[in-house]
Amino acid sequence: MTKSNAQPSAKLGAEMSDKLVYNFGDGAAEGKADMKNLLGGKGANLAEMCSLGLPVPPGFTITTEVCVGYYANGKQLSPSLSAQLEDALAQIESKVGAKFGDGTNPLLVSVRSGARASMPGMMDTVLNLGLNDITVKALAKKTGNERFAYDSYRRFIQMYCDVVLELDHYHFEEMLEDKKRDREIELDTDLTADDLKELVVQYKEKVQQELGKPFPDSVHEQLWGAIMAVFNSWMNPRACTYRRLHDIPESWGTAVTVQSMVFGNMGDDCATGVAFTRNPSTGEKKYYGEFLVNAQGEDVVAGIRTPLPLDEMPAIMPDVYKQLTAVFDKLEGHYRDMQDIEFTIQNQKLWMLQTRNGKRTAAAAVTIAVEMVKEKLIDIKAAIKRIDPLSLDQLLHPTLDPKAPKTVLATGLPASPGAASGKVVFTAEDAETMALDHKEKVILVRIETSPEDIHGMHAAQGILTARGGMTSHAAVVARGMGKPCVSGAGELRINYAEKSLKVSGHTIKEGDIITINGSTGEVMIGEIPTVQPQLSADFETLMSWADEVRVLKIRTNAETPLDATVARKFGAEGIGLCRTEHMFFDAERIIAMREMIVAQNVEGRKAALAKLLPMQRNDFVELFRIMNGLPVTIRLLDPPLHEFLPHTEEDIKQVAKAAGVSVDIVRHRAHELKEQNPMLGHRGCRLGITYPEIYEMQAQAIFEAAAFMIKESKESVVPEIMIPLVMMPKEFELLKSIIDKVASEVMRRTGTAIEYKVGTMIELPRACLRAGEIAQSAEFFSFGTNDLTQTTLGISRDDSAAFIEIYKQKGIVEQDPFVSLDQSGVGELIHIATERGRKTRPTIKIGICGEHGGDPASIAFCHKAGLDYVSCSPYRVPVARLAAAQASTD
Amino acid sequence: MTKSNAQPSAKLGAEMSDKLVYNFGDGAAEGKADMKNLLGGKGANLAEMCSLGLPVPPGFTITTEVCVGYYANGKQLSPSLSAQLEDALAQIESKVGAKFGDGTNPLLVSVRSGARASMPGMMDTVLNLGLNDITVKALAKKTGNERFAYDSYRRFIQMYCDVVLELDHYHFEEMLEDKKRDREIELDTDLTADDLKELVVQYKEKVQQELGKPFPDSVHEQLWGAIMAVFNSWMNPRACTYRRLHDIPESWGTAVTVQSMVFGNMGDDCATGVAFTRNPSTGEKKYYGEFLVNAQGEDVVAGIRTPLPLDEMPAIMPDVYKQLTAVFDKLEGHYRDMQDIEFTIQNQKLWMLQTRNGKRTAAAAVTIAVEMVKEKLIDIKAAIKRIDPLSLDQLLHPTLDPKAPKTVLATGLPASPGAASGKVVFTAEDAETMALDHKEKVILVRIETSPEDIHGMHAAQGILTARGGMTSHAAVVARGMGKPCVSGAGELRINYAEKSLKVSGHTIKEGDIITINGSTGEVMIGEIPTVQPQLSADFETLMSWADEVRVLKIRTNAETPLDATVARKFGAEGIGLCRTEHMFFDAERIIAMREMIVAQNVEGRKAALAKLLPMQRNDFVELFRIMNGLPVTIRLLDPPLHEFLPHTEEDIKQVAKAAGVSVDIVRHRAHELKEQNPMLGHRGCRLGITYPEIYEMQAQAIFEAAAFMIKESKESVVPEIMIPLVMMPKEFELLKSIIDKVASEVMRRTGTAIEYKVGTMIELPRACLRAGEIAQSAEFFSFGTNDLTQTTLGISRDDSAAFIEIYKQKGIVEQDPFVSLDQSGVGELIHIATERGRKTRPTIKIGICGEHGGDPASIAFCHKAGLDYVSCSPYRVPVARLAAAQASTD
Repeated sequence: MTKSNAQPSAKLGAEMSDKLVYNFGDGAAEGKADMKNLLGGKGANLAEMCSLGLPVPPGFTITTEVCVGYYANGKQLSPSLSAQLEDALAQIESKVGAKFGDGTNPLLVSVRSGARASMPGMMDTVLNLGLNDITVKALAKKTGNERFAYDSYRRFIQMYCDVVLELDHYHFEEMLEDKKRDREIELDTDLTADDLKELVVQYKEKVQQELGKPFPDSVHEQLWGAIMAVFNSWMNPRACTYRRLHDIPESWGTAVTVQSMVFGNMGDDCATGVAFTRNPSTGEKKYYGEFLVNAQGEDVVAGIRTPLPLDEMPAIMPDVYKQLTAVFDKLEGHYRDMQDIEFTIQNQKLWMLQTRNGKRTAAAAVTIAVEMVKEKLIDIKAAIKRIDPLSLDQLLHPTLDPKAPKTVLATGLPASPGAASGKVVFTAEDAETMALDHKEKVILVRIETSPEDIHGMHAAQGILTARGGMTSHAAVVARGMGKPCVSGAGELRINYAEKSLKVSGHTIKEGDIITINGSTGEVMIGEIPTVQPQLSADFETLMSWADEVRVLKIRTNAETPLDATVARKFGAEGIGLCRTEHMFFDAERIIAMREMIVAQNVEGRKAALAKLLPMQRNDFVELFRIMNGLPVTIRLLDPPLHEFLPHTEEDIKQVAKAAGVSVDIVRHRAHELKEQNPMLGHRGCRLGITYPEIYEMQAQAIFEAAAFMIKESKESVVPEIMIPLVMMPKEFELLKSIIDKVASEVMRRTGTAIEYKVGTMIELPRACLRAGEIAQSAEFFSFGTNDLTQTTLGISRDDSAAFIEIYKQKGIVEQDPFVSLDQSGVGELIHIATERGRKTRPTIKIGICGEHGGDPASIAFCHKAGLDYVSCSPYRVPVARLAAAQASTD
Repeated sequence: MTKSNAQPSAKLGAEMSDKLVYNFGDGAAEGKADMKNLLGGKGANLAEMCSLGLPVPPGFTITTEVCVGYYANGKQLSPSLSAQLEDALAQIESKVGAKFGDGTNPLLVSVRSGARASMPGMMDTVLNLGLNDITVKALAKKTGNERFAYDSYRRFIQMYCDVVLELDHYHFEEMLEDKKRDREIELDTDLTADDLKELVVQYKEKVQQELGKPFPDSVHEQLWGAIMAVFNSWMNPRACTYRRLHDIPESWGTAVTVQSMVFGNMGDDCATGVAFTRNPSTGEKKYYGEFLVNAQGEDVVAGIRTPLPLDEMPAIMPDVYKQLTAVFDKLEGHYRDMQDIEFTIQNQKLWMLQTRNGKRTAAAAVTIAVEMVKEKLIDIKAAIKRIDPLSLDQLLHPTLDPKAPKTVLATGLPASPGAASGKVVFTAEDAETMALDHKEKVILVRIETSPEDIHGMHAAQGILTARGGMTSHAAVVARGMGKPCVSGAGELRINYAEKSLKVSGHTIKEGDIITINGSTGEVMIGEIPTVQPQLSADFETLMSWADEVRVLKIRTNAETPLDATVARKFGAEGIGLCRTEHMFFDAERIIAMREMIVAQNVEGRKAALAKLLPMQRNDFVELFRIMNGLPVTIRLLDPPLHEFLPHTEEDIKQVAKAAGVSVDIVRHRAHELKEQNPMLGHRGCRLGITYPEIYEMQAQAIFEAAAFMIKESKESVVPEIMIPLVMMPKEFELLKSIIDKVASEVMRRTGTAIEYKVGTMIELPRACLRAGEIAQSAEFFSFGTNDLTQTTLGISRDDSAAFIEIYKQKGIVEQDPFVSLDQSGVGELIHIATERGRKTRPTIKIGICGEHGGDPASIAFCHKAGLDYVSCSPYRVPVARLAAAQASTD
């Protein structure tokens, strides 16, 4: 997972191609669409449009290699760039019939950045470059429009100062506003040519005054300045943050496109606009966009004038509109995807400035993909590959109404998607009381959560924590429940005693309403309205295609009837991980569980376990019934016993009473069970080895439930019993023999024949290495990749927040290894275990059931590694189905 | 590490050879000395002595395979045993000229156990078997000694009841005492034949009364009963415990030797005795032993009569003595080792009953080995292989005077060898005050220790803890300091508030004197005198031989001048691990360290680090000076920062004052740094990545110290800087670049050229897997096998005590993996890392520096794995030198 290509090195610079500049224009281009890596998305697509014969202003693109070389060589540009650039500039001049810096027929250009992946608004652009006191006059004369010329000059100075000279634009905006106030006008367009001339003078004085040097008159100095500014913008903080958030390697670099200017602001027969070939929000097949007459691109963005919707264009410029829609159709047909297009109309002539695959909502993506299959533009595999599986999350959870106003209090990690509003509560007990007794919607706010809080999390609409990462207890459990969660909102100062929290100047008390957005990490004051999801027919179609092509089976991690039902609705093909311990936190059960833990001897433990047995049996009967013959993998008790112990005085007394021992004994036992590193402590099958009676009870509950099902429904139930945290083959053998013994007792007693499997969770590096021996008795493996990641990397996921973000920033890891599987570390162990396990037992069933089971990149890995299934939380099942399908189309 | 052969299986039984019984006697034998696995040590050596022509009573040995088969087949003996046994019995009868159970000339036999390894007193023996009411009369008549015959019968009944019928011997001892009281005599030997006859009748009545059935009259029933009893004794609790303590696999089984009886108790021309061919305590070349006239072996053991020293024998039985010493010389010459011999003299005829290599103290072992080389009995390699490296510990630490009386309060784990007495203190502070200010010897008693206690541990004579295993903090640090430690003495009830501890009815208060024996785990009341160790010339000779043959280099783990000095004295060839954090616990430094930790920003941290810099620099100067040109590997800060934080209110205030912040900020920071699983938390190089200024300071201190040394001593110093807990190649690269930068700054500033290496500790499975990439920039690897074991096996060594003992008992692990390296798990990762690291960088230096560096089995593994060195605590250096030599003679 190390970024092998994250560090631009001198070596890369040395490998730079000889050709640094690619020309386009007049229906021909040196580049094409599939050269995005070299020319950036913008440059490649401009070249492609040229070759398609579309009207594109001539220009050239400086390659990303130049940028990479620039950084590798201590911010020095390649010496051979200059000549190639002059040559390319000459080609534009010849195509346009104008000359850069010429006193009579000047060429103006735009300078734009363009990376391999779209990074909207992250890097810098300069328009109208090539103007100075001389060329502006020539432009005025040539266009016969002095006002236009000086407006362009004014805009250019302002933009150039902002982007290249790092002189903040507010200086100029103030002068512009002063001018309008003096002239008692409201709109920029009401300024006269003389006003603008005066402004230009004032602007240039301001530059001299602020920077101690004049605004550059030399158009070549302007051009080089703008190119360097684009390269420098690759490393500006905004761009770095964007790259980190979108997993774009620093090593890609950006290209620079220099293009002759066309003007949408030369009069009322001019316009500028943006459009999508289909609706990017719904996917509807209908042109969608907006335009502004007599304007330059930046005016649309600035929002000073309200643009017109595209369907008003036929009335205003019917011919151009016809041309434009023809271009839309041509581009969509060519790219076989919905396009996001920028255009300018100069004196009734259409010019294309950009095309790219348009960003869209998940719903639109699904609809467009399905419709394009029906239109035979793409095939099913292409449709499957076109949807980001993670984006489906948007469709499965309620989302905040994007139109609603909001006050953001803090931003944490987007730990479990969806949005929720409710009254703030600070304890699981309060959550339960408020939710169940008072029917209130609540948000459970904790510094961090523990298994003791699960009932409160169940009762809450959403969970907010001040500590913990994307895979903290709160995050994992919330995702499992499909509940929104924001974790690790470190700015929150939570005071349990006062039942309040302080953040960014606000004090929120118990009962105050907040809203959390688990898809963005935002925490907002008050209730923000949400929108409920509806699964469209297109969604179902896409999913059915995915199911046809995928090889991996998709199971779910579930232990409650609700989770199991939701997962089946979302298409789960069985339960891959039923964590039996979650079944013990129920108020009635936790007492018996605690009684078992404080028991002084085997007899005491057995007595307490006898109370739990009928409850466990019923749990399994319910799950078997819901899963209706699908496989159900049940993991025996895993967490260290102290997780179940009481903390409050009241609880301690209750347990002491139930167990018939003194309060001191309960306290002493709690103290005795405390561990330095519980993750590596007395847990998993170590409990089964030291207290075999626990696993005996669980096995009995499973087999009795299975026997009941067989008698009740005459249907076959094949429980898969999973032993956690196996480290030694002998551990597994010992515990399997206990389970086999219980199985044969139950079968004899009930007169049934139960088919079952006993397997293990592979969660430790040692288990991976000894998998061949473990497979001699284990009938299936399920990689517990959470624990396997913790041990392979030596990182406690609960404690990783303190450094993992810095690791991402410094490029040491590309992704949090608890979010996306560490393929070259943990992955190698999975390969080793799979190979050795299958060598011993070729038919062994192998899956994974960690958090990674819902991560598309990890699912692709599992497919390649030849696993049989992945198991993920219920709300991730559709994500996994699609990701598995994508993996098998590669 | 799973006991592959721990479970006797039907398969093993099925593979049993056809020959189940091996005969010996009359100068010939079917077995020989190298058949110990089949015949047990006793049987094999009896056969060998026969073949050597020594006088051995005829007999036969039933093989260990019969025992293994017995357990594999549900305690059923092989059906073909009976015929072979009858045949063997017939051979004895013919050699002796007597008949088993015969009414006129009866054969009597002994039945003894004999495993592959000696398990003294752990299993059962029956003598005089073959007596009943008829044969006893025949024996009386044949020997003309009725008293002898009935005394033998009486002894037989008593022993047989104890061993075979499970009727406790106190029943019989009471009757014997009653009889003596009735007869008003004191010694057993004063009982008459009639007394003994009466006793026999009473004994047999008792058997009928207690067991409801008569004592068996059938001599064959007696024989089979005794054989079964020996096999059953293999699994008695004493034997199981002994095997676990001595790592003897259950699967070996025991042999049974049946041998015709000879009698040392037939009169004053009879005797029985035990002897060593050299002094087993000192190694002196002088016959050593004791004998008892007119007695049977058990009388020597019972201690009723005091035996005579062997050098009184020439006066009593000069001819037999001459014969005996000739046998001694013959046996020692034959076995080329000091022998432990049992003999019986029957009517002036010498019979040999056993010979085996004698157990000896470490000092004797060394002396005997060295002298035997001088005597040309063995060569140097044999001498090296003959010493158990771990036994050298006895020679290096003070030991308790074995003759002193003692009251054992509790027994914990023998965590760090040696013995110490002192006043009990319960806090590190009290330890320091009492030791430094009041010059008292103290024993630091803690529930468990933490790095905060190190100064107290330094001040104390020894450490006693109620919690923690052989590799707990207390154990590891104590071994590093060469201080005695008993850990995990769970019976102690320590009350810090009252400064007292309760154990087995005693209350020990602060200031009371106790003694701990770190070699046995015993805790005793009061002061027990100790004996100081002296390293003999023989020891030095042996060590010099070891150094000649070994390939592995031996370094030490040391950070204090004292440790470094001790280690050099013991022959360390450099420092393999200098844990810089140990240098920060000094009273003056901990404040600056804490200031650094509570600092709010980089500047604050740098200011605090600046205070630490000169102290660290001096530490390194001292170490470099002591190591005098030998390599010194310095590990940069490793533990999580909260280990340094203050706990008491007083300390918190002091830190707040020093750092110029509020007490609340210190508390908040302490809370913030608290971790769920600190072992897997924000530690190791993760600190270096997030707070680069810490590693910068440490690197600066190292290089400035090196520069100083170069200028001062003109000698070359090659510091090896070690980055801990590396997980990603990029982590290492980033930190190495920081170190390189500091190095070049210091070299420029001081005008010196410092040669140095930067390498990493390999402590995580991922680092093993990616070792090839890490080796691209790392110049050495040192396996941190403590952490690597923790992560590979998923076991926190601090929390393993709760289950690892049960794992050993159940045969899941043979050894605590923190004591002896898990070769098939952790070991495979070491192989992978070594292979991949060397592939990238063939000259890379590779060692280990975990606790395993001092464990002989682990050292043998490191030798085979081709490592360059092992590093261990100072007091383990001689152990490691010898173990490394042994590994290279295999």
